[in-house]
Amino acid sequence: MKTIVLKFGGTSVGSIERIKKVTKIILKYKKKKNRVIVVSSAMSGVTNELIKKSKLISGNFDKAEYDALVSTGEQAACALIAGRLNHSGFKARSWMSWQVPIITKGPHNSSRIEKVFLRNLLKYLRSGGIPVITGFQGINNLNRITTIGRSGSDASAIMIAKFFKADECIIYTDVEGVYTTDPRINKKAKKIKKIEYDEMLEMSSLGSKVMQPTSVQDAKINDIEIRVKSSFTNKSGTLITKKFKKKNINNEIITGISFTKNDAKITIAGVKDKPGVAAYIFEPLSKNFINVDMVVQNISLDGKETDLTFTIRSEDVKKTEKIIRENKNISFRKLSFDTNLAKISIIGVGMITTPGITYRMFKALASKKINIMVISTSEIKISVLISSSLLKKAVAVLHNEFNLD
Amino acid sequence: MKTIVLKFGGTSVGSIERIKKVTKIILKYKKKKNRVIVVSSAMSGVTNELIKKSKLISGNFDKAEYDALVSTGEQAACALIAGRLNHSGFKARSWMSWQVPIITKGPHNSSRIEKVFLRNLLKYLRSGGIPVITGFQGINNLNRITTIGRSGSDASAIMIAKFFKADECIIYTDVEGVYTTDPRINKKAKKIKKIEYDEMLEMSSLGSKVMQPTSVQDAKINDIEIRVKSSFTNKSGTLITKKFKKKNINNEIITGISFTKNDAKITIAGVKDKPGVAAYIFEPLSKNFINVDMVVQNISLDGKETDLTFTIRSEDVKKTEKIIRENKNISFRKLSFDTNLAKISIIGVGMITTPGITYRMFKALASKKINIMVISTSEIKISVLISSSLLKKAVAVLHNEFNLD
Repeated sequence: MKTIVLKFGGTSVGSIERIKKVTKIILKYKKKKNRVIVVSSAMSGVTNELIKKSKLISGNFDKAEYDALVSTGEQAACALIAGRLNHSGFKARSWMSWQVPIITKGPHNSSRIEKVFLRNLLKYLRSGGIPVITGFQGINNLNRITTIGRSGSDASAIMIAKFFKADECIIYTDVEGVYTTDPRINKKAKKIKKIEYDEMLEMSSLGSKVMQPTSVQDAKINDIEIRVKSSFTNKSGTLITKKFKKKNINNEIITGISFTKNDAKITIAGVKDKPGVAAYIFEPLSKNFINVDMVVQNISLDGKETDLTFTIRSEDVKKTEKIIRENKNISFRKLSFDTNLAKISIIGVGMITTPGITYRMFKALASKKINIMVISTSEIKISVLISSSLLKKAVAVLHNEFNLD
Repeated sequence: MKTIVLKFGGTSVGSIERIKKVTKIILKYKKKKNRVIVVSSAMSGVTNELIKKSKLISGNFDKAEYDALVSTGEQAACALIAGRLNHSGFKARSWMSWQVPIITKGPHNSSRIEKVFLRNLLKYLRSGGIPVITGFQGINNLNRITTIGRSGSDASAIMIAKFFKADECIIYTDVEGVYTTDPRINKKAKKIKKIEYDEMLEMSSLGSKVMQPTSVQDAKINDIEIRVKSSFTNKSGTLITKKFKKKNINNEIITGISFTKNDAKITIAGVKDKPGVAAYIFEPLSKNFINVDMVVQNISLDGKETDLTFTIRSEDVKKTEKIIRENKNISFRKLSFDTNLAKISIIGVGMITTPGITYRMFKALASKKINIMVISTSEIKISVLISSSLLKKAVAVLHNEFNLD
């Protein structure tokens, strides 16, 4: 008997008809004598509606009450799914995180699941029931409801799969899997059948919306294979798994291309160089929740001054400027900003063993006269900052260059 | 320091603006250094929307999942109220029934509150916080969410007031209090300043929508004074309390007039009389959840046959006919039905000590040529069944006859 965790996202349970459809998917697994555990998000739209209400109540709505409020969305969805499974003649029930219980740590709105208690659920599973568990939430040590951030239902499914030592963890969503790049930007995008955790982690971190990086990281750490597939079609999806030997038929060194729009670049020129100057600059930004992405520091030739460039999201530009100008721990000559930028990244574990990828990337971009502003590399990805107006063109040329078309 | 329980019904928290308004009411009590406990219903419309979804999922939606589903309404409302109180600078938080906990007994959808645990809430109250508790729900001994029937938030407030030995229990609603009769039927209806539990109990049971009879009963048993008032206006409302000496200025023997529309009358003629025949007739009706109201059995002159008349709701007529015809334990000559009837009741504890009330009621109705079909009396009320087309006229003549105008 296999233990299978099935997770359904908001659009998968976005209407009564959709809920009826997913119960059929659930029962397909149940009828094959599997031990099935369901995790669900809120019906799409419901969470946004609740958030809207909270904003109308207060511009600074209490974080704990926010969690109590939005967690009602998953509770309602799970009750409806369980109700439909019962209607179909199967034993099923909703499980709220406090009933399991699922224990989280960390602040409200961005907690992390620390433990999933097995006793109650195991008893229920042994009796033949299908538990339908609220994703995205847990309770903390004060017995209050917490949420684990938006899209956190994936993380719930992965942690439940971990604690139950599940054989499979299937994330049902509204896309058919992970693509070589965003199909809305490049029509030649193809579905990836199998991808390694590290590649998926880079894809997620670098803009692919299919899964949150933290969820991929959780899966990797706990060695949980994840299949991402669509609840709307009956196709095989993408398997996210550990290292595997690739069939390098088409010289597929690059697995996918991710991107973020809406980036901004800041350059602090003529910073007086001294030990710890970068920390002096970035510490107050971090404290103000400004996410610094790429960082480039020019070598200081005379050992006295240096230029520092880094990227942030466009909406943080004003706040960042204010913080830097008010920072008494640093002195500099000039501060400049550049917005409307995009970061484009090529990802693939094959990169480690294949020289010349950087060169091929730069050459391909140059062939289309696309100027590179900042470069950042890791073992399995190369990211470049370009003008966002050239994004589509850049994705197309790279998708072709690396045989992804 | 007084302990005050404030309960808000669905229309009182029916919009963001309304929620802002009720937080002002709450803070008015808090600022007077009271210990304030808030109980809230779901925002109006929310519960019906959830019920609609459950019906689309299944015509026979699981009762336990129904409770899990609809209980999200109060949870969201309480989080929003608490969020607004926090926004106004006051310490407040939502309390779900499982966090208190509030323990219920009995079946899903119609549980009753058995115990309200004080420890967690007392600690919170001592810290100066305002708890905002979900009405209408609790948890059972299986740790599952239960609901206590529609309008059950009143019962929640009363039981919380009981366990906390509260000094006041104020039920905020969308009407200004209890009226001598329904103002929509008779414009001369007046607000009652003070009413005894027993009178209120009859008023509720006999069709007054202000409070559920079970809640009034709970209040009576536990000796909790209730003030019913409007959250929309700042008027004093109606106090529901134990026996008090009435100022009989206007010969006010009758406190109020209630009515139900949509009644039906069934007559089973020529029933073979034998011991327990009434039980044989009513047992299968009760098992099918058909609520039998007034019952009249004619005296069997020959000791062999009897005629039995009783009233039910119109929508139950078909089901009732089927059950009676299929009932093998009884034999009768004829079955007849009469729909579109109304039951009108006059209520007042003064009745006990004042003779001639029945006569005055019948005479007043006769003066308007209103035919009485069935009569039923108790110590403090007289109910008669009439044609529903004559209801308005009947209410008017009785309201005048008993000096309520």
